[in-house]
Amino acid sequence: MNLDRREFAALILGAAASLSVGSAASADDDPLPSWNDGPAKQAILKFVHATTDAKSPQFVPLAERIATFDQDGTLWVEHPIYTQLVYCFDRVPALVKAKPELARVEPFRTVMTGDRDAIAKLGLEPLLKVVAATLTGMDVDTYRDEVAKWITQARDPRWKRTYDQLVYQPQIELLRYLRRVGYRTYIVTGGGQDFVRVYSERVYGIPPEQVVGSAGAVSYRYAADGRPELIKEPKLLLNDDNAGKPEGIHLMIGRRPVFAFGNSTGDRQMLEYTKAGTGARLAMLVLHDDGAREYSYGPAQGLPDTKVGRFTPELYDEATKDGWIVVSMKNDWKRVFAFE
Amino acid sequence: MNLDRREFAALILGAAASLSVGSAASADDDPLPSWNDGPAKQAILKFVHATTDAKSPQFVPLAERIATFDQDGTLWVEHPIYTQLVYCFDRVPALVKAKPELARVEPFRTVMTGDRDAIAKLGLEPLLKVVAATLTGMDVDTYRDEVAKWITQARDPRWKRTYDQLVYQPQIELLRYLRRVGYRTYIVTGGGQDFVRVYSERVYGIPPEQVVGSAGAVSYRYAADGRPELIKEPKLLLNDDNAGKPEGIHLMIGRRPVFAFGNSTGDRQMLEYTKAGTGARLAMLVLHDDGAREYSYGPAQGLPDTKVGRFTPELYDEATKDGWIVVSMKNDWKRVFAFE
Repeated sequence: MNLDRREFAALILGAAASLSVGSAASADDDPLPSWNDGPAKQAILKFVHATTDAKSPQFVPLAERIATFDQDGTLWVEHPIYTQLVYCFDRVPALVKAKPELARVEPFRTVMTGDRDAIAKLGLEPLLKVVAATLTGMDVDTYRDEVAKWITQARDPRWKRTYDQLVYQPQIELLRYLRRVGYRTYIVTGGGQDFVRVYSERVYGIPPEQVVGSAGAVSYRYAADGRPELIKEPKLLLNDDNAGKPEGIHLMIGRRPVFAFGNSTGDRQMLEYTKAGTGARLAMLVLHDDGAREYSYGPAQGLPDTKVGRFTPELYDEATKDGWIVVSMKNDWKRVFAFE
Repeated sequence: MNLDRREFAALILGAAASLSVGSAASADDDPLPSWNDGPAKQAILKFVHATTDAKSPQFVPLAERIATFDQDGTLWVEHPIYTQLVYCFDRVPALVKAKPELARVEPFRTVMTGDRDAIAKLGLEPLLKVVAATLTGMDVDTYRDEVAKWITQARDPRWKRTYDQLVYQPQIELLRYLRRVGYRTYIVTGGGQDFVRVYSERVYGIPPEQVVGSAGAVSYRYAADGRPELIKEPKLLLNDDNAGKPEGIHLMIGRRPVFAFGNSTGDRQMLEYTKAGTGARLAMLVLHDDGAREYSYGPAQGLPDTKVGRFTPELYDEATKDGWIVVSMKNDWKRVFAFE
């Protein structure tokens, strides 16, 4: 194999380009095939070009390329109830087996009946009892193993698939695309940090240290055999929702995001905080307006108010006023799930 | 330029090797020139080889290569008092200028006299008042700017150098070496997370998101002009010392370190937690036994008990028993500071 200087240079440059991060993808390969051509996709492509092209006046250095994504309703399905709550309910039988006296105590008695209507009528206080009993009291390794097992076994009632398959394919492509151009992708979720960290790397390509979520205290102690362990305590350190999202971002990342993606009022402050930075910033919101392929809820734009993952008319107005991009699941996403 | 297949392959492989991370350095270039040849340096080289050589039975995948370093007394000088406390005292005049009524209130009155003996006699409660008044109440950007200015201007009384020059050169080399072989280096400090994050990237090559430290709450609010801001509150979220170190590592990183380096009883639990993992683990402690080049304090090994950064005989015993490597500043470090 003989190469002249020009051929050799082209080969080396080609190899270097395939190894490098930080530059936008070439125009002829579509990084977002599950997105319809439209204003949302165009806004993403324009933003990536503006912040990663070294000649752009809005170029963002590699170290500052932080993109934060809400999880429930933004990366995966949150209806009819949050997946982590399903986990909590599913854990109750094992809990009662370990502590039989709970079978006679509310709300565990009701949960054990399996009566969905009665369970749905449980108020917030009983619900928090179930959450505390199933998410705390064990060491962090035991909890991780339990979640890891559940997440690949439990199936949702509508699609009969494991919950980790109910992720939105357009968002998986967006996460990959952002990482390919040098963004570090974070999850910033109201859900439990320890819960999401179990599967985030496998499902989203996001490592545990890039998951910010609601977090309880852990306490360091020595087990009977002298080995140190960390026990999950029923004490909330960070309520990572609403104002807690920018607060959690400061605590865990210490940099303001350049890009933020959410879907409900719980993401409002994260998007405001992101957009308040200087230079190019992109804020996006998923609107669940596709009852046929997924779910339909608002109450913005006349969609039903289901109380889970609310996208209010006020949020819609703020998005319009401040240039946040509202993504219509129905119109902007060619495909919702990988299994379609 | 003509190349045959073998020459071409060698060139490409050479370029690829220089771009790759994850393999140990070649034997003929010393990654730790400021370390004397001895058991400490040998332990580091052996550990790196065992965990990064793909053929080693103790090989650690890239994603799990986490190394955590205490800061005060491990990466930079902590005597005669912690640098962040010097910052707090230095801020008092500006504070009194902004709120003149403080000049008549203790402990601010005493601090304003500049009487070092009287200041040294202030108890813990008055000290915490100074800390709270100088580290909280402002938005995080204002605080960052103030620290960034101070850290390049204030000079310590002994060497007459800025505090960010009082970093240990052997540790800078170790941080670089670990990163070169694919470790992510974290600071895990009892000091303030927001304080250390200001200069960690420039001084240690450690970005803000890899600094875990004692952290206060911040609260999201809107300034008079409507812009969102994060205000530092006088409420401690994480006391990142002693048991707080492994607790903070779980909260902020979510993985158990493979390597941990400290220097005092405040690092004990972090080192225990690190060593309790499976596979190769390395735990190290700096012993400050070099009063000539730096400071001499213990009280382990008959060194003076100065109350700042205590290395007790009990800690020394645990290190010996559990195979932690005690680094003698006097014997193991060829050079302490870059400016020597």
